[in-house]
Parts: sequence; structure tokens; C-alpha cells
Amino acid sequence: MTFTHCGIVGLGLLGGSLVIDLRHEFPQMRLTGIARRRQTLEDAAGLRVDDMPVFTHLSRELGAIKGADLVVLCTPVQTVIQQLAGIATFVSPGTVVTDVGSTKRMVMNAAATALPPGVFFVGGHPMAGSDRAGLSHARAGLYRNATWALCAPEGAQEAADRVAALVEEIGARPLRIDADLHDRLVALTSHLPHVTACALAALVLGDSQTELIRAFIAGGFRDTTRVAAANTAMWRDICLTNRDNIARELTEMIAALEQWRDAIRAGDVPHLEALLSRAHTLREDLNR
Amino acid sequence: MTFTHCGIVGLGLLGGSLVIDLRHEFPQMRLTGIARRRQTLEDAAGLRVDDMPVFTHLSRELGAIKGADLVVLCTPVQTVIQQLAGIATFVSPGTVVTDVGSTKRMVMNAAATALPPGVFFVGGHPMAGSDRAGLSHARAGLYRNATWALCAPEGAQEAADRVAALVEEIGARPLRIDADLHDRLVALTSHLPHVTACALAALVLGDSQTELIRAFIAGGFRDTTRVAAANTAMWRDICLTNRDNIARELTEMIAALEQWRDAIRAGDVPHLEALLSRAHTLREDLNR
Repeated sequence: MTFTHCGIVGLGLLGGSLVIDLRHEFPQMRLTGIARRRQTLEDAAGLRVDDMPVFTHLSRELGAIKGADLVVLCTPVQTVIQQLAGIATFVSPGTVVTDVGSTKRMVMNAAATALPPGVFFVGGHPMAGSDRAGLSHARAGLYRNATWALCAPEGAQEAADRVAALVEEIGARPLRIDADLHDRLVALTSHLPHVTACALAALVLGDSQTELIRAFIAGGFRDTTRVAAANTAMWRDICLTNRDNIARELTEMIAALEQWRDAIRAGDVPHLEALLSRAHTLREDLNR
Repeated sequence: MTFTHCGIVGLGLLGGSLVIDLRHEFPQMRLTGIARRRQTLEDAAGLRVDDMPVFTHLSRELGAIKGADLVVLCTPVQTVIQQLAGIATFVSPGTVVTDVGSTKRMVMNAAATALPPGVFFVGGHPMAGSDRAGLSHARAGLYRNATWALCAPEGAQEAADRVAALVEEIGARPLRIDADLHDRLVALTSHLPHVTACALAALVLGDSQTELIRAFIAGGFRDTTRVAAANTAMWRDICLTNRDNIARELTEMIAALEQWRDAIRAGDVPHLEALLSRAHTLREDLNR
């Protein structure tokens, strides 16, 4: 059974893009948007899809989600954790609550404590996004073909099925996964690359030879560091809610870079060729 | 005075793209191409620009550059160093020799020893390229708006002016720079990002959870590691001819990642926010 009234809390890139797709797929669905900033609410009021206003109702108050059978929290992870407590008094039994945050264990724990009995929490994480944050970058089809991880505690399997069916309607690929495994894998595929890109961007662009550095920068550096321009509040919360996994992967990365440095410093041709060739083969394979 | 006969040694992405642009700008120029592989020579023979064959002559022998007033070595750096000795008997006084390799100090030293008096070597390095190697990816306009570093030893200033004028004709931006400073800067802007991307690609894609890892990979990881798919022979030579600079920058990068790891592990919010915000600001500035 699909949902009839969806409350979206947080109208940035992810929340905004989700609502655009929902309005397109479900012209009859009641869509309530909640945002803190007045400017965001004004911009949201102007959004139209297929000649319909995207939102049925907009508000600054969490209480506006009352009556929704689906609540989607689209804010940074630590805000999600606060908002789970904030919405607890407004949700009634049978309501499904989900989120789109990049880490899942701490959110799942918070939901288990905060939400009243009979309200089902399904942790969600679409593998979509951009270094461009905010409602102004929201667009139709952001989630097309993206993996959408779903973590359901015991007792919430049916709720997870309903959320899975919904995200499939907008073209995403639901993937049921344990929250701990999820957090370990995204530390590797997303959080480690992000921290690495940030460290690299700061090291290179913070060099004192600013003018010359800029002349020497080409597409490779731009690609390698693109994600470093992303929203800092979102990434602060990701780092703080996945500390052990990210720290462990960073230790692995540091050890790998030490291997490269030692092979290069020593001019160790066989080792260097092996390192380059392994990276080349693995990355080339991803292009296929 | 522009050149009348250009010999291009090495017909990969860089050499091929250069010849395409030269033919377009200089329909009268004699263009001799030299490659080792028969297949490359066959492919090169089929290249046409503005309805003209790109090459005047093609050969497997270095001796074919005899009579050229400009020789451009477009092979990996260590091959360039060998070829400088190889072409020495075929070049006559007044000839200008240049290259497109990514490191300059060792090439400049080799040229000073290998080339006969009266032959001018100008080290060159266009900030252009791709993770897609080979003549089949060569294209018009690869060098448009790219910085083209030029390193001229004493006595080769006029030769450097002539090379600068040539690369300007194909839309590049010549930048005269000292070879040691060049090698230090590219270690930072290009070699460090490359090694980092390789280490990251191998760490993530080499994980045992292959299937799940792939489901979790999104655009950020693809961008961050794109360059790791590049030509391994070229990068082996770059690493081997810029060892001290790359090793030093890797040590800086390792120290930076240790800072990030310690801040994340400790949940040090002010430090983490400062690190994220500095990276964001510096990288965002590059988008402007």
C-alpha cells in the first residue's frame, strides 16, 4: 500500500529532489514540506512539476507532519537524531519514519529510543548527491539508478517493503542492509574518499605559491578534489556519527600511502609497477 | 620564425592531439610521425584534418626526424631520456628539440649531455591529458587554454620563444618556469593527487565485499579516483624522475590525514569543523 501523505523535513538538495520526483509520480499525494529558513520556504512555494505546485503545504513547524503516514527526515545526521525526538509527539501508530542520512547506526539507535510504539523507523541512504547543496540545485531524476540503502530493525520489515516500493517508483534501487555493515562500507566508499579529497584540496590550494599553483592545476586535480566543496555541516555530522569506521579506514589509507612513498623514494621499480598496475586494473574495471 | 618541418616521436594521446592541431593551424608544415608499433603507424596514416592527411611521412625509425627544425618527443619521461641520445646523430645545429613529459629536471640534464652543440633543448609540459591513453583518444583542441610549461636552459631563450609562439597558435598558454620549481609544483598539483587516487582506488575496489562495494559507489568516488585508470608506464616514469618531490609531498599528505583521523577519532568538533571549512573554502574558490 502506498503512502497518501508524506512529510518531508529539510528541503535541501536531497529533500527537494525527492519531493519533485514524488509529485511527478504521485499527483494525488499530500506533500508537506518543513524547513527552518523562510527563504527556503519561499523558494519551495514556487516549485512546480507538470504544472502542479510541488507542495500541498509548507511550514516552519515540525508539528505540520501530523497526519502524515510517511515522514522523511532530509537533514544532516545529527539534526535527524534531534528531530526524531522532536516529531515523537506528532506521529501516530502506523506511521513510517525514514531518513536519507549517510550513516545509519546512530540514527537507528536514536529512533529506537525516541519514537513511540507502533511507529516504524526504516533507516534510508540514497547513494546520490552532489558537491552543490541546497534546494536551488534540487532536480528531477537525482535518484534514478542510485542504490538506496534501507536498514530495518526487527518488526519493521513490512514498513521497509513499503519504503522500498516507493523509492523504486522514483527509479532508485532499494538495497536492504544491516546498519553496521552499511556504515563500514560507506566509510570505505564515500567517507574515506571525502576526507582524502579535503586533505588534498587543503594541502595543494593552501600552498603559498597560489598563482603558479592555479596555472598548474588541470582536470585531474579538479576531479580528484571536487567533493571537497560539499556542505560542511552534513560532513561534520557524517564524520561524528561514523568515527570508528572512518578512523580505521584512514589508518589503512595512511599505511597505503606510506607504501607508495617508500617505493617511490627507493626507486623500487617492480614494487611501483605492481602498485600502479593494480590501481589501474581495478579502476579501469569500474569504467566498464 | 615558425617551424617548417616538425618530427613527432611517440603518437599517443599527447603526440596525436598535437599533430592534429598543428595540421589544422599549419597546412604547409611537414609533419613526420614516428612510432614503434605498426598498428599505431597504420592508425596514424588514416588521420585526416580539414580533408588533408595529418602526416606527411610516417616511420618506425628515429632517423626519420633528419631535416626537421623542430623535434617533439611525446613518450614517457624515461623513454624521452633514451631518445635524446638516440636522435643526437640525426639533428643538426639550429634544430629545436622539446618534449611533453610531466617532469623536467632529469630530462633537462639528459638533454644537456646528449645533444650536440648548436641544438637547442626546451623542456615542455602541457597541463593536459586524460585517463584515456593512446592515439585513438587524440583529439583537436586538447591543449586549448591549457598551461604549457616551458623550461629553457641558458642560451635557449630564443628557441623557447619560438616554441612558446607555436603552442600559442594551438591555443595553449606558455609559461616559462625553472625546471626545479616546475617539478616541485607538479609533485603537488598532479603527482600527489595521482598517487592518492591510485592508493584510494586500490584500497576500496580491492575490498573483499566486491558486489556490495560496487552498489555503494557513487559519483564522488568515481571522480576522486578517475585518474587512477591512466597509463601505468607514463606514471612509473613520472614517479621515478621526481622521487624526492613526490616522497616529500606524500609525507605532508600522510601528516594531514593523521590530523583528520585524530580529530575524527576524538570527536573533536571545533578541529573537524575547521578542517572541513578550510577545504570547502579553498576548493569552492577554484570553482569560481
